[in-house]
Amino acid sequence: MANSTPPLARRMAEIAPFRVMDILARARELETQGRSIVHMEVGEPDFPTPKPICEAGIAALRKGELHYTPAPGLSELREAIAGHYRVRDGIDVAPSRIVVTTGSSGALLLALGALVNPGDQVLLADPGYPCNRNFVRLLEGEPVGVAVGPDGNYQLTPELLEQHWGSRTAAAIVASPSNPTGTIVPSAHLKAMVQLARERGGTLIVDEIYHGLVYEGEATSALTFADDVFVVNSFSKYFNMTGWRLGWLVVPERYLREVDKLAQNIFISPPAPAQFAALAAFLPETLAIAEAHRAEFKERRDYLVPALRALGFDIPHTPDGAFYVYAGCAGLTADSFAFTHDLLERAGVAIAPGIDFGANRPHEHVRFSYTKSLDVLAEGVRRIGEFLRRR
Amino acid sequence: MANSTPPLARRMAEIAPFRVMDILARARELETQGRSIVHMEVGEPDFPTPKPICEAGIAALRKGELHYTPAPGLSELREAIAGHYRVRDGIDVAPSRIVVTTGSSGALLLALGALVNPGDQVLLADPGYPCNRNFVRLLEGEPVGVAVGPDGNYQLTPELLEQHWGSRTAAAIVASPSNPTGTIVPSAHLKAMVQLARERGGTLIVDEIYHGLVYEGEATSALTFADDVFVVNSFSKYFNMTGWRLGWLVVPERYLREVDKLAQNIFISPPAPAQFAALAAFLPETLAIAEAHRAEFKERRDYLVPALRALGFDIPHTPDGAFYVYAGCAGLTADSFAFTHDLLERAGVAIAPGIDFGANRPHEHVRFSYTKSLDVLAEGVRRIGEFLRRR
Repeated sequence: MANSTPPLARRMAEIAPFRVMDILARARELETQGRSIVHMEVGEPDFPTPKPICEAGIAALRKGELHYTPAPGLSELREAIAGHYRVRDGIDVAPSRIVVTTGSSGALLLALGALVNPGDQVLLADPGYPCNRNFVRLLEGEPVGVAVGPDGNYQLTPELLEQHWGSRTAAAIVASPSNPTGTIVPSAHLKAMVQLARERGGTLIVDEIYHGLVYEGEATSALTFADDVFVVNSFSKYFNMTGWRLGWLVVPERYLREVDKLAQNIFISPPAPAQFAALAAFLPETLAIAEAHRAEFKERRDYLVPALRALGFDIPHTPDGAFYVYAGCAGLTADSFAFTHDLLERAGVAIAPGIDFGANRPHEHVRFSYTKSLDVLAEGVRRIGEFLRRR
Repeated sequence: MANSTPPLARRMAEIAPFRVMDILARARELETQGRSIVHMEVGEPDFPTPKPICEAGIAALRKGELHYTPAPGLSELREAIAGHYRVRDGIDVAPSRIVVTTGSSGALLLALGALVNPGDQVLLADPGYPCNRNFVRLLEGEPVGVAVGPDGNYQLTPELLEQHWGSRTAAAIVASPSNPTGTIVPSAHLKAMVQLARERGGTLIVDEIYHGLVYEGEATSALTFADDVFVVNSFSKYFNMTGWRLGWLVVPERYLREVDKLAQNIFISPPAPAQFAALAAFLPETLAIAEAHRAEFKERRDYLVPALRALGFDIPHTPDGAFYVYAGCAGLTADSFAFTHDLLERAGVAIAPGIDFGANRPHEHVRFSYTKSLDVLAEGVRRIGEFLRRR
């Protein structure tokens, strides 16, 4: 730093903003101008947080004792999560291996922080959740996007992992169900990928944040057959707790001390209000609400996918879970980015451009979220139809 | 990764756990065995969160709409913080420059993430807050501890900065009031250090999280005379919101876009319950509570410092703010680490060992927190006195 230009880390040039945030900002601008906008761009459920969770939070706030909790979270909450694995997945996960985190974002930072050296590669499905590659870059690792498509269910496969795993590969991130495609990794594939990573001296990080929101088939937790994988999960999606920022990381035994000291240093503790509230997440009455939401998501999916196909979008694989439709639009436009902008400006429908999800033919894809009610989705479909006819 | 040893990032060997957490854990263990423990080890106020803040949080939880907020925080909250600077410090800070974060930890990660390249040096006072060096290491920068002592008020000075600023230095972190010493950087020094960093093409990061908790002199915000510094602040200490995890970062204009995209990627949004609650932080009734706490902290300091001196601890500088006493114990023990353990086991008093705060004569220092009421502190002092006499 011999000159007088203020410093800027090189990584910043490679960390991209989400384009969908610009879409959202523009949509809000149009709304303040009186325009009606159908929101199919945002990746968060429209449901409020279930009442029993809010009530538990309110009880904690009434007491006012919201101090730091232990860095890996309240022990009651870690035990409740272990109980959930026991009931839901029929597996025993020691509460000591469950580290409560500030959203799944916090979980990913802990896992990658403990695993990735500068220059280490991390394999990721492309298209995939955009933050993942940016977390890897933040830590000076090298995110390696592996193109996935409809033939592999838009997921990494044992063959792809074998093919792309190199001498510098430290880990691979697998998300099931995936954002943006909603597809699930078959159990046999997951098992084979865990095995392959293990043999190569690496680790699989499995993102299970959409577990619970599955409408077709089954999403088996990687913990069912492995205890040497990192599993990321969250209260955000299934429990509608996005804004609370609460997730968890299941950590292989040998990394516990490392992850704990990293959590102490970079987070001190996950948010206490969210932790006290989440103690009510696994109550029968809360699970009933979450299951009702799941039924509604399924209905929305069952409406939206055929409706979009009828408009000319290419959706080779009906999403199994989450609340996204990743749709090919090559038959409708040569530039999905311009398409999303036009759709917003001219038809008042906000969707996410493919560019947010990677470098694998992003211009031919867009992502729809079905986080709004059926009638809103229907209005969106109507507007898109009209937009396409009028062009 | 050609072998089959699971990967472990090299940084983990250089990121130390807090020894004080072991002290705390052992103290709790002793408590469950029926022992009475005086806690002077923990760095968080014992006061509950002020009622108006909890009430505002409860109102938000009743509505249940706790979705992601914008990545830099609710605009009402950013404006409220700007208003606080206007009223308290008499300065205008554009709300657009205020980024709400997940604790001051989040603020520090954003600032360093945008500034520090691998191998870049960051200057830090030693003794100092231990997480700072670990954040730098996480991002592959090189934390450089600069020994500070009683003659420089336990703070970095323009001379020290001049002397240690090298070709690889990207930034220096200054904390005023400081943890563990409670000392303030004089305005003239702060000004000169901002200027020096600027001339060398670097940046000053100023940690002001103990602003408001000052009992002697005045802690001037660096924003009073510079808009090209990063200022870290928090709701944790002055507003007793530790567990909520809410802080903020004031960002120089030219870094706004960078910090915003980093925040999008690594945090998505700061916790919504805390943000809605914190909207009540700047109400007159809340500030009255915070000021009453400040008066109580001053009383505790005024009791504890002379009492510790009378026991033989060396406290050359009465702390100006925060709620810590950094005390020399060379006259009492040759090994502060063993001393803190003995004190806990034999006298039931928990304090923090110097080792947590750096490499500058840690064995000759311990840190006391005055986060407990006067009578608890008096009992602690009594027990320490007895312990010292009986040895």
